[in-house]
Formats: sequence, structure tokens, C-alpha cells
Amino acid sequence: MATKLPSAFSKTRLIELKSIYRDGLLHDSLPFWFPRAVDPEFGGYFTCFDRDGSRLQDDKSVWFQGRMAWTLATAWLEVEQRPEWLEWARSGIDFIERYCFDTDQRMFFSVTRDGLPLRKRRYQFSECFAIIAFSAYSRASGQSRYQDRARKLLADVIHRHRTPGLLPPKVDPETRPMKGLAMPMILLSTAQQLRKHSPDPAYTQIIDECIEEIRTDFLKPEFQCVLETVADDGGFIDTLDGRCVNPGHSIEAGWFILEEARQRGGDSELIKLGCRLIDWSLEIGWDNEHGGLFYFRDAKGLPCTEYWHDMKFWWPHNEAIIATLLAAELTGEARYANWHSRIHEWAYDHFPDKQHGEWFGYLHRDGSLSTPVKGTPYKGAFHVPRMMLLGWQSVQRQLDRIG
Amino acid sequence: MATKLPSAFSKTRLIELKSIYRDGLLHDSLPFWFPRAVDPEFGGYFTCFDRDGSRLQDDKSVWFQGRMAWTLATAWLEVEQRPEWLEWARSGIDFIERYCFDTDQRMFFSVTRDGLPLRKRRYQFSECFAIIAFSAYSRASGQSRYQDRARKLLADVIHRHRTPGLLPPKVDPETRPMKGLAMPMILLSTAQQLRKHSPDPAYTQIIDECIEEIRTDFLKPEFQCVLETVADDGGFIDTLDGRCVNPGHSIEAGWFILEEARQRGGDSELIKLGCRLIDWSLEIGWDNEHGGLFYFRDAKGLPCTEYWHDMKFWWPHNEAIIATLLAAELTGEARYANWHSRIHEWAYDHFPDKQHGEWFGYLHRDGSLSTPVKGTPYKGAFHVPRMMLLGWQSVQRQLDRIG
Repeated sequence: MATKLPSAFSKTRLIELKSIYRDGLLHDSLPFWFPRAVDPEFGGYFTCFDRDGSRLQDDKSVWFQGRMAWTLATAWLEVEQRPEWLEWARSGIDFIERYCFDTDQRMFFSVTRDGLPLRKRRYQFSECFAIIAFSAYSRASGQSRYQDRARKLLADVIHRHRTPGLLPPKVDPETRPMKGLAMPMILLSTAQQLRKHSPDPAYTQIIDECIEEIRTDFLKPEFQCVLETVADDGGFIDTLDGRCVNPGHSIEAGWFILEEARQRGGDSELIKLGCRLIDWSLEIGWDNEHGGLFYFRDAKGLPCTEYWHDMKFWWPHNEAIIATLLAAELTGEARYANWHSRIHEWAYDHFPDKQHGEWFGYLHRDGSLSTPVKGTPYKGAFHVPRMMLLGWQSVQRQLDRIG
Repeated sequence: MATKLPSAFSKTRLIELKSIYRDGLLHDSLPFWFPRAVDPEFGGYFTCFDRDGSRLQDDKSVWFQGRMAWTLATAWLEVEQRPEWLEWARSGIDFIERYCFDTDQRMFFSVTRDGLPLRKRRYQFSECFAIIAFSAYSRASGQSRYQDRARKLLADVIHRHRTPGLLPPKVDPETRPMKGLAMPMILLSTAQQLRKHSPDPAYTQIIDECIEEIRTDFLKPEFQCVLETVADDGGFIDTLDGRCVNPGHSIEAGWFILEEARQRGGDSELIKLGCRLIDWSLEIGWDNEHGGLFYFRDAKGLPCTEYWHDMKFWWPHNEAIIATLLAAELTGEARYANWHSRIHEWAYDHFPDKQHGEWFGYLHRDGSLSTPVKGTPYKGAFHVPRMMLLGWQSVQRQLDRIG
């Protein structure tokens, strides 16, 4: 496939993008977070930082124990074998094992600096991020027991997800049985990560099932969008929640599917599907007045009621940069290079903190800063460095193709 | 007390304010909501409306079944005995009784149009709003069983609140025992409403306990602010949540205390306390750059991380208008008239929808509109009409004093 495709970007632009993403990863994002975030006393990571890196609180997000250990182990595996990256990854892995599991083998949502439980939530995201961390760290450290642990944990997550009654539902399932895009998305991505380090057709089967569920139940051609929440049988629910579109989220789902297409040597049906998610989501999500991606939109074009619906968050822009780079790589279509430029330029004009490095996270609709914080329980070393790493890799492949 | 006090407002201004609040209540806010919100088929109230009054969803907020029945019954009792107000109040009361209680006598958070349960939450706000609705409706309808029901429900709420283990805590109480300002505030206000219709020293005792708890545990002279969350023993928790100040909320607590001072013939200690809450909260909450009240602030002046921290919501402005009117009424101090003018003018410049009536709810920091919706699961006929009613009453008392 690759050789026949035109390049959507000029060689000059690809060279320029490569240095932006590579240098951003190595000289901006990772150095902002590490070693600052690593707790020398109890291990694990802090995430709550003011713009200059001063700490805003010591409580630890369990999502980010997994996400940041994954970032470090993946950098060690895919960028350079720096001993400190592996050492810091181990710190997170040990903290997770020691403090982040409840007695029922479910994981907490947040813990104190010294690992005492604070909150536990109904969602299984803590588990999924721990799984990808265990898997990458297993490969990096050469200790297979972490891969076994990851495999077992994923099986538990899927079992709980698919067995009615095991997880407390948010909305009464007798009255309104419904489901979210988040689970098939995160299972798809988690299985991709595990398969990378431990090839197994069982992971590909999970991936196929997740993609099929997204295609069948969450894509709504009648609204040209991807819904966040649908009825259990995929039906449309005509409420505020049922009409809710999260463009950054569905763009992320789109590139997970494109990545699968790439892994399968350019599967054209998957490319078509991934691009459809991305096309619809950019169309509904882009703010034609101020630029940037809205956080929420309504499938019928009605007003949104979530307070931050029109704010510009950093991570949808990270996901859209990855998605448009992959779409350009896999299709060679100039319109994806154009979308990429538009999103990349807007993001780089607004999010980077020129004084203290890394990215701000939260802007108003008009692009002005809402809060200067660099890290929160929901923003740590994940979306920004992942974009820089995957962006660098996609750009390198496109350069290699040009020769 | 009253006769010796100077008037903080000019007579001209009081006459003007009286017509703004009275006409706003009778010709703007109530007519926007009613009869539109009343469900002719299943009873109870819809709350989710676009700016022009078209319905955005049919699901019903249980908070607002109580709040709106209270608004209607109170208007009937304190403004005019319009038969339709009592009839519409009855519709909400019947819906609450029929559909909003779970089998454990706790209440739901949201139900479908036809009364099937959707969500139930750990907080007891649905219960408190049902209680004030039952109490006001009991007085208005002359049916004492609703007052008995209210009294019994309040006892249940207090029992659950004070008995560890009966309600699932958000944060592990072994790790970090903590408590919120919301419960003493809402119990204080709920007991005031019940006492109004059924005088009983037991209610005054609840009120005294709540005020004492707020004074002792939530006021922090070292930060000159009122905290939303403190340790179980009133200690300061140095985290994002522990430093969180919600100026609109603490201003509301302030006027609940001023109202108690007024009920007790001008108790000077209570006036001092209520004014302290209001002074501190206005100081930390007012946006000197764009005007209006911030949603959240940090006690130490650190940045906030809640996404909507700097948005301007309608209800803190409603509460601040009531609070400054009462403070001016009870102290005669010109600075409260000045604060009132500043808040009233900013609010009336930004929130009213000149085309379709009533108030918008959600503005960006700079005062521009975030969403045009008029009603949501959290915005219905409560804060705006309550401000107009209480504002009208306070202004009338101040006019009567001038003679």
C-alpha cells in the first residue's frame, strides 16, 4: 500500500514537524514532569502542579500512576533506553501494586501520598491504565510476571464489564438500559497495547469486537456523528446525555481504529471507518468562530448544558493531531494535512507555556487562559507526550516513505 | 432596633427596586416557568428548556419537583392566592409522593417523565427540597398531614446525616474524615421554612446547632474565607478540595444567618456573623477585572482546577442580591447598598434574556453567554423567583421604615 500513496505533507513540513514533536517530547514535556512528579519517599507520581511546577496537592491520581508508568516505559522501549526512565517507571509500578488495589481486586481512583485509599469509582479506567503500564513495563524490564498480571487484569475488567450487576450502574438499568463509548474505546486501546508486547489472537478478537460495537452502535449516520451514550441495543436516547457528542473522544476512537488499520497493513475498511469517525467529529467539533475543538456538542445542534461544553481542553487537540497525522499517512489525502495544520497551529499558538514549559490544559472558548495549572488529577504526563511520541513516529514513517 | 437605623438606600432607589423585583416575579420569571413547566399528563415539572421555552428533555429533576412546588406554594401564601398557583403546586406535591421516593424512603435524583427512577445520589438535597415543599403546601392547602410528613422527613434526614455509615461517603472516612458546608446550610434553611409554618422550638434548636457548626468549623479567619469542605473536627485540609471556596454558596449561608437575626428581632451577634460571611465572600468572590462573582476560589489564592471555576452563574448573583439587601436592611450601612448596586447592576446587565424573558444561567468569565438554555436539571423556578420575592419583601420593609 504505502509505496503507491502520495505524501499529504511536503518533505520540508515533515522535517519541521519531526523536530517539533521529538524536541517537544525530549526537551519540553518529559523534562517538565520528570523527575519532579516522582515521589522519592513513597514512590508513584504526583500530578497536581502549578504552571511553574510547584505542587498544588500531594494526593495521587490512580489513573496517572498507570498512565505515567506507561509513558516512561514506552519512552524507554521506543525512544531510548535511559536508565532513569525505567527506574521512574518502576516507582509507579511498585506504588500501584502496593497501594492502588482494593481487597476486591478493583482499583481506587485516588489515594493519599502514602497510599491510603481516598476515592473509588464505578468506572474501570484505573484498571485499564494499570494494565497498559504493567504490559509496557514487563517488556522493558524483562519480567514476564507483569505481562501475566496485565492479561489477568484485562480478563477481570472484561468480565465485570459484560456481567450485568457486577458494577453499580449510574442510571437505573431497569428504566433506561444504556452504555457508553468509553468502554469499547478503552478496551480496544488496552488490547492493542497488550498485543504489542505479547502477540495473541485473543487480543485481536477483543479489538474486533470493540470496533464492531463502535461501528454498529455509536456511529449515527442520521446525525453524522459519534454518540457518547446510547441505549443498550444501540438505540438513540433523545435526552441531554443521549445527544451528547465529545469530539475529542470520538477523534481518539477514530485514530485507535486507524492504528489498527495500520497494524493490519492498511486494511481499507478500517481506514474508511476510522476516517469517518474523524471526519464527522472534526466537522461537528471545530469552532469556526474562534478555532479549536469544542468539548461537547449536541447531535441535533441543540444547546449543550455541561458547564465546560465550549471550553478548549488540551487533550482533544492532542488526539486530533495524532488522528490527522495517521489519516494523512494512511490515505495520502491533502485534506488531512490541511486539517492537521489547522489543529496543530491553533494548539501550538494557544496551549504551550512559553515561560515554564509543557502545555496549559484549560482555555476559554476564545482561547484565553482559564487556569494556569499544569497538572491536575486529570492532567499529567500522558496526552501531550503520547502525541509527541506518536506524532514523531508517524512523521518519520512518512519521511521514510518519501525517501 | 429598626427605628433607629438609617436607610442605606434612598427612597427613590427603594421604590425603583421594588418594582423591578415585584414585576420581575409576576410578569417575567413566574410566567416563563408556569404553566409551561407543569406536565399536564403525569404531573410534576419539566425543567430543561431552551431560551424560547422549547423543551430540551422530558426527564424530571427531583430537586426541582420540591423547589418548584415550594416556589408556587410560597407565592400563593405570600403574594396572592391565585388558584392556579396552588393547583400547580399540588401537581408537584403529588408527583413527589407518587414517584420520587425509593423503597428505603430515600429519594431519587432524577426520574423519567412518567416517574420511573433514573438516578439516586448519596446527597440528601432531594429530600430537603421536598420537605420545604410539603411544609409550604401544607400551610397553603390547609392539609396538616403534609406538615407532619415534612417534620418526619427532616428527622430522617438528620438521623442519616448524623449516623456514621448510613450514607455512603465520597471519600474514605478512615483515611480522611471530612464534611461539607452544604449540610449545615441546607438544614438551617429547611428548619427555618418548617418553623415558619409550624412554630416549634425544636426547629430553632436545629438552626442554632447549624449556625454554631458553620461558625466554629467552616469560617477561617486566617484565610478570611468560608470553606466548602473541612476535616470532621473542623480542621483545614490542604488539598484542592480543602482549599475550595464557593462564594455564592457562602453568601447564601450568610443571608440564612441574617434572616435568622431578623426573625429574632435583630440579634446583633447573628448580624455580625452573617455579615462576616458575606463580607469575606464578596471580597474573595468578586471579579475586579470583569465584574460578577467567580464560581470557585482557592483559600490560599492558588489557582483553581474545577473547569467552570471562573464562570459567572446566575444563582450566586441571586444570593448576593438577597444577602446585600438584608445586610443593608439590618445594619443600615451604606457599603451594603453599594455592594448591592454593584451586583444588581452587573447581574441585570448580563443575565436577563431580553427576547424571551427570565434569566440566562451560564456566562463566561467576561460576561459573554456560554449557553442560551433557560432551564437545566440544575436551573428551574427557584433562585431567580426567590430573589425577586425576598428582594421585594426586604425593600418593602425598608420603605415601611422610612415611612
